[in-house]
Amino acid sequence: MYQGETTLNIALIHHPVVNKRAETIGSAVTNLDIHDIARTARTYGVAQYFLATPYDDQQSLVKELLAHWETGHGATYNPARKEALSIVRLVASLEMAIAELTVKYGKRPMLLTTSAQHRETTIDYKEVAAKINNGEPVLLLFGTAHGLAPEVIGLSDATLPPIKGCTDYNHLSVRSAASIILDRLLGS
Amino acid sequence: MYQGETTLNIALIHHPVVNKRAETIGSAVTNLDIHDIARTARTYGVAQYFLATPYDDQQSLVKELLAHWETGHGATYNPARKEALSIVRLVASLEMAIAELTVKYGKRPMLLTTSAQHRETTIDYKEVAAKINNGEPVLLLFGTAHGLAPEVIGLSDATLPPIKGCTDYNHLSVRSAASIILDRLLGS
Repeated sequence: MYQGETTLNIALIHHPVVNKRAETIGSAVTNLDIHDIARTARTYGVAQYFLATPYDDQQSLVKELLAHWETGHGATYNPARKEALSIVRLVASLEMAIAELTVKYGKRPMLLTTSAQHRETTIDYKEVAAKINNGEPVLLLFGTAHGLAPEVIGLSDATLPPIKGCTDYNHLSVRSAASIILDRLLGS
Repeated sequence: MYQGETTLNIALIHHPVVNKRAETIGSAVTNLDIHDIARTARTYGVAQYFLATPYDDQQSLVKELLAHWETGHGATYNPARKEALSIVRLVASLEMAIAELTVKYGKRPMLLTTSAQHRETTIDYKEVAAKINNGEPVLLLFGTAHGLAPEVIGLSDATLPPIKGCTDYNHLSVRSAASIILDRLLGS
């Protein structure tokens, strides 16, 4: 528990996600997704940032990267980065993240998805912010590639409304989308 | 002029910026700063996204990258990315960006800086949003490395308040900070 830590948790899902033809795939872990999202998450008081990938080689890469910043040269070179990455938790699947949080909080977290498209079961930002302020555990999911696979969306309790600018262009990076959504939920 | 285009412009400054010892330096252009910030900027109706670097080799890299997405393989592979990058404008200095905008709008744009630290001449998000809604030209500056050099800050008309989460951690990437600030100014 760190100063300002909330009950909001996030997970970046690398499998199952969809490609541009809406086929279910697994994506590769991106270095900057780990760093940028961890820095934003730590700024806004996210309790844990789960990286979910079932692939052994991808898990090894993540472990190596985290070790560099947690105990290797990076830890002394940039202690602020170490602090951000300390909330990152590598898991093989979304189910593992849910299980860990269920144990931690003594109840299953509310599962929220995000999407560039409008979906039916939406909840607004204020409502989620109020739940977090009340200490309710929430797990917010972000998809890599072209987004979360339908079976992940099917597991969720609600979906946040898509982020809109004042144009019809709608192709934010997951790093930008995560930053904006965390600011909307927890920014002062 | 594209559908939803506003009078907000942004510039990512690569020189003069400061390093962690507060010495004035020039930084290298980062591929993902171009892509992520262009995608967010295009989503929110930013008119032009200036990349300012005085270095010939860095300018060549940027031109090569933009050509790939504007007329090369990238343009057909991912037309949405082409659209985002079409607002990117390479300039040698901040002065060039100011001059181009002064010609375009017939008056010098209001120059705004952003910072992780509190500074004296602050203006709030709503006030800037109102100016943009009124069609006043604004140029919002982002620094790379450890931030804008004092001489750039000295040129600016006002500074936006720093972004705060609910913790004392304050190390957002420039990509995340730009996303959050554009959403605060132009998000619906």
